[in-house]
Amino acid sequence: MDPESDGPSAELLSIGSELLAGETIDTNAAFLGSALARLGIPLSGIRTLPDDGAVIASAFAEARGRVALVVATGGLGPTHDDVTREGLSGALGEELVADPALEAPLRERFAALGTMPESNLRQALRVPSAEALANPIGSAPGWWVDRDGSVVVLMPGVPSEMRRMWDEQVVPRLRARFALRPVHARTVKTFGVGESTLAEMVGDLLTAPGAGLEAGIYAHDDGVHLRFWTRGDSSALEAPVARAVARLGDHVYGTDEADLASQALAALGHAGATTVASWEADTRGTLLSILSSAEPAAGAARFIGGALDAGATAIPVADAVIQLSLLATDAHGRSRVRVSVAGAVSLPTVEVRVHGSGVQRARRAAFAALDQVRGAFFA
Amino acid sequence: MDPESDGPSAELLSIGSELLAGETIDTNAAFLGSALARLGIPLSGIRTLPDDGAVIASAFAEARGRVALVVATGGLGPTHDDVTREGLSGALGEELVADPALEAPLRERFAALGTMPESNLRQALRVPSAEALANPIGSAPGWWVDRDGSVVVLMPGVPSEMRRMWDEQVVPRLRARFALRPVHARTVKTFGVGESTLAEMVGDLLTAPGAGLEAGIYAHDDGVHLRFWTRGDSSALEAPVARAVARLGDHVYGTDEADLASQALAALGHAGATTVASWEADTRGTLLSILSSAEPAAGAARFIGGALDAGATAIPVADAVIQLSLLATDAHGRSRVRVSVAGAVSLPTVEVRVHGSGVQRARRAAFAALDQVRGAFFA
Repeated sequence: MDPESDGPSAELLSIGSELLAGETIDTNAAFLGSALARLGIPLSGIRTLPDDGAVIASAFAEARGRVALVVATGGLGPTHDDVTREGLSGALGEELVADPALEAPLRERFAALGTMPESNLRQALRVPSAEALANPIGSAPGWWVDRDGSVVVLMPGVPSEMRRMWDEQVVPRLRARFALRPVHARTVKTFGVGESTLAEMVGDLLTAPGAGLEAGIYAHDDGVHLRFWTRGDSSALEAPVARAVARLGDHVYGTDEADLASQALAALGHAGATTVASWEADTRGTLLSILSSAEPAAGAARFIGGALDAGATAIPVADAVIQLSLLATDAHGRSRVRVSVAGAVSLPTVEVRVHGSGVQRARRAAFAALDQVRGAFFA
Repeated sequence: MDPESDGPSAELLSIGSELLAGETIDTNAAFLGSALARLGIPLSGIRTLPDDGAVIASAFAEARGRVALVVATGGLGPTHDDVTREGLSGALGEELVADPALEAPLRERFAALGTMPESNLRQALRVPSAEALANPIGSAPGWWVDRDGSVVVLMPGVPSEMRRMWDEQVVPRLRARFALRPVHARTVKTFGVGESTLAEMVGDLLTAPGAGLEAGIYAHDDGVHLRFWTRGDSSALEAPVARAVARLGDHVYGTDEADLASQALAALGHAGATTVASWEADTRGTLLSILSSAEPAAGAARFIGGALDAGATAIPVADAVIQLSLLATDAHGRSRVRVSVAGAVSLPTVEVRVHGSGVQRARRAAFAALDQVRGAFFA
């Protein structure tokens, strides 16, 4: 969201040389960016840092001077290159001291797992001004430091540990510490129309969505999303959403949490299918992956599995089988996708065009197929 | 890799408010971090910036003062909030001018697609010192700016467009522009052992891998990876890799590009299976997704599809069916996973424990299952 909005803003430090070397994709940043935006403490910036105590120390010092909240993930492990604790203690000018209250749960945890490597004792260190944040599913405790009018939060880089610590311990403290004006947002999701064409179609809804409202366009593999948000009354979002849906017509496949897989399964359920399977060629299982991650919903058909580049015997028996083949690519990098549905619920073959290459092309082909299925059975 | 190494280093600017709002996961950063590390121009930092011309301008100015290469992705689209061009022109103190040579391909591209929104003409602007980088599969050209001893590269944020522009146009220019000492790296991949335990097992191989060598440990859902790299002779990596493999024994499932899905399919092929299917419960199709993304290999069994939480009729007919069920979670957030293989090639049920929650737990359960299959049939 807009870091210029009134209210506190935050900076994120993603710490770990493996992030800079591309060993790891920083999914924590997107999780925290989204969570902070909803809380009303939008991220104004993210810095990704190497495991270098001096670099980390100056990054903490600079960020504390700019924003009310600095969130850092990573570098809390037991190994010699985990130096986030040292970096922050340097920035704060506080000594690291062993905390017996942190050592106990560490030893208990490892008692259950076997012997504890001595290096893990580094995870029982904290600076005096840090309040420890328990990590019930990992060995690295987090820190909450509220000093000189700014808050610093340290969390482990392991996504599952970070997310649980965030939900259970950080969010409640943030609500208590800051006077938050949460951001309310609505999203209109489209498929089959480009970013700039969509911008022209919605026109003033994007450039002037209304008093106290902001709008943005985001291109994803599952289509272009039009987003409206406000720090005011959420009911103010209804009108622009309704107008956008009206202007964009059939391009719209849903709003907010709606996704193409769930919409396609709902459409097939609406058409009378109880079970759905998939068959795909040259898309490396992306249709399988996307369909299998869809949330089950009342009235929707249930995805039971699928087959890859395989003979008919490999296709699970279902009321409807979504069939997808990726065809050749032209000079502009556009590929054609052949889509049909076979079974008790069926749809004649249609062909659509997709852009991109590699995994992205395969994902877009799968989403294009799901959009065809959705459109055919809701039409 | 180590940004302190001799040779040029780079900074990445990932531009787009959608990244700060968590609308998009920045996969470009990992791709570029890895590619730059291999080229021998390691990333010393990444900054993620909002669509704010002034913020972008100062970030470019600061980065140009620090490193020999600044790479930026995103903000080259046609919409009003795409201001990366304006930001860099501000940092360089150069005017944006329309380039007829850029306008022509834009109009040609849209002639094939329909009418061109006038806003797309912004994509034909450049500063005089910028050399345009053609984008054969998208509307946003990139920029190559070599001025005052530092190079700035602008690329689109769309991953497929960025990757093709990077491979075809940026890498050759980097090789010609910089005297590069590429980094050679080897990775030893393990499963079923924790980061700190593995660090103790390899001991001095991690802390003192040898003259001119560096080492690091990286924890992933598919296990803990031990990485060695050097800017010198790649043959120097053989000895530490061999010693690590010997010390870690059965925990090692492969090196470098080896992945658990391919290893499991190879093991099943070795055991006599030609086709493999999967059946999984409560893992949201992660086993399907991981198996379907495995590269086909000679002698390996071929994954033909799978079923989710479904009856036997939904399971594709195959020589071997990998069966996975995720069991209950304990107080420490550990879950048990039940794994077996049924069919002409079979494996009695075993149970293993996994950590984490949500999608990560499901992924770890799938990798744990594949590691059991690999181990059983190579043993």
